[in-house]
Amino acid sequence: MSALPAKAAILGAGVIGSGWLARLIDNGVECAVFDPDPGAGSTIAPVLENAERAAAELIDVPRPRKGAWSLTGSVADAVAGADLIVEAVPERLDVKRAVYREIESANADGIIASSTSGFRPSVLQEGMSHPERLIVAHPFNPVYLLPLVEVVGGKATDPAAIERAMALYTALGMKPLHLKVEIDAFVADRLMEALWREALWLVNDGVATTEEIDDAIRYGCGLRWAQMGTFQTFQIAGGERGMRHFMEQFGPALAWPWTKLTDVPDLTPDLIDRIAEQSDAQADGRTPRDLERIRDANLVAILKALRATGWGAGETLAGYEARLRETTIGD
Amino acid sequence: MSALPAKAAILGAGVIGSGWLARLIDNGVECAVFDPDPGAGSTIAPVLENAERAAAELIDVPRPRKGAWSLTGSVADAVAGADLIVEAVPERLDVKRAVYREIESANADGIIASSTSGFRPSVLQEGMSHPERLIVAHPFNPVYLLPLVEVVGGKATDPAAIERAMALYTALGMKPLHLKVEIDAFVADRLMEALWREALWLVNDGVATTEEIDDAIRYGCGLRWAQMGTFQTFQIAGGERGMRHFMEQFGPALAWPWTKLTDVPDLTPDLIDRIAEQSDAQADGRTPRDLERIRDANLVAILKALRATGWGAGETLAGYEARLRETTIGD
Repeated sequence: MSALPAKAAILGAGVIGSGWLARLIDNGVECAVFDPDPGAGSTIAPVLENAERAAAELIDVPRPRKGAWSLTGSVADAVAGADLIVEAVPERLDVKRAVYREIESANADGIIASSTSGFRPSVLQEGMSHPERLIVAHPFNPVYLLPLVEVVGGKATDPAAIERAMALYTALGMKPLHLKVEIDAFVADRLMEALWREALWLVNDGVATTEEIDDAIRYGCGLRWAQMGTFQTFQIAGGERGMRHFMEQFGPALAWPWTKLTDVPDLTPDLIDRIAEQSDAQADGRTPRDLERIRDANLVAILKALRATGWGAGETLAGYEARLRETTIGD
Repeated sequence: MSALPAKAAILGAGVIGSGWLARLIDNGVECAVFDPDPGAGSTIAPVLENAERAAAELIDVPRPRKGAWSLTGSVADAVAGADLIVEAVPERLDVKRAVYREIESANADGIIASSTSGFRPSVLQEGMSHPERLIVAHPFNPVYLLPLVEVVGGKATDPAAIERAMALYTALGMKPLHLKVEIDAFVADRLMEALWREALWLVNDGVATTEEIDDAIRYGCGLRWAQMGTFQTFQIAGGERGMRHFMEQFGPALAWPWTKLTDVPDLTPDLIDRIAEQSDAQADGRTPRDLERIRDANLVAILKALRATGWGAGETLAGYEARLRETTIGD
């Protein structure tokens, strides 16, 4: 049996719901979409168009025949017979709970996957008759291109539903990240929100403009973050002695008022041990020198990719090469 | 006259100093390096090797003849006759100030560019005889690949030194970002530090491992940040009505305890106006639809680049395609 659902329902046809639709039909899954807004089609069409352009350029193997899809007149019509029910309605608990009631009266066994970026699944499950099939599957815009989906179960979630979801998102070409601990906003949005709040302070205090802040990201740390996260990047910075050395060297800076986020964890020996051990496990036998070479090969590939699109760091590279070429000709 | 220095001195041969050395000699600049540690050469050699491998793969045009370089026995020997003096010694004010005294007694007119990631230039300038030629030029590891360098002047800095530095770093193939307001840790490290502090909390609280946190970055927001920053990404999310709409929609989340960074700026009408206006200026006439297509083209190019290196999001893509290929063959 394929990990893909035979039929999916999508409730809410905003940017996120439309992105899920694109990914699902591109994998041959039949979809039914419901949105109470009669103008919902106006969001869907351009998202499907963007997704098709992207997939045609990206995917090097024969793609599945596109799944059929249709707009339906009600939640009940959309979810009838669906193995996967994507909830992508506005971030209001009352709205989501009303939708779950409608789902439960019309569908008995599909996985209900909320796209919420903030509510814990256990909170969403309150008041449901069959909460065991509800999970959070939090994607990132554009859903048809970014692989990450955070999969989170609530107190009442059946572990089998998580297992099925992990296989399903993998089959859709995604990278499902199963978070074992429920917190508001999960992991990725916590990180993005911390950076965002600091960025708002920088604009608020007149230190930098939005463009300067964006440039500080996309010409620097953003290029690293496209391929290694913050821990692995810093592990490399620690050199032969790795993360433990980095933490010892830069730990003191945590006490300095860099960022407005001054409430920081104590770097106890226990926490340093935990981070060093997890970072070593993550390196999976690769030496710092190995990781440097992997990082550099990735950065070179990304810079070349952006040179081809003519954007950001790739535009800088192209300008540099143009000047080198002139200099050589002028010699 | 070329914007490049005829001769540069590099004080401190750690990972950052060695990275500067690689970038400078690769642009034909003659360099003299001083590090009090007699084992300094052991850091330089592998950095130069990595840099050469990266540049050979990255640069598509004839490269300049490599600049000669040598290790010297003193600061005075290194800085003699240098137009650019790169200070990359440890992050201790007393150490840096002692080095500046040595520079001032041996070199009268080279630009002194500190690689500090934290100290404001005005603080570094205290006690100097000729502070007008000191700037901060804060790079990012690996210096030979990442284009960003934050250029910051202090109270005593001559505007001509900033102007010369901006031309110099551009000539080195970098993206110099001139920050007009001095704050500790400048802009990029503020953002990185906010994300890092939040990440430490997530490990500290047992919510996620270092690998899970890194995956949440490199399969999601990190791919976006390699080509657009946080403001432009969110501007697209705001759709036709742009940043103003986004701020109205997601502004309330600032009051929620997502992240430990709960001290957030008030989203006054004035701040919303400022952000919306700056974001519009940054878009430079591009519609949200234009920006979506640029974003998607960049993401497709980055995903293909990572597919070629077999890493992160590219590994996910390759696995997906392998399964699609099997399915087609199995049909």
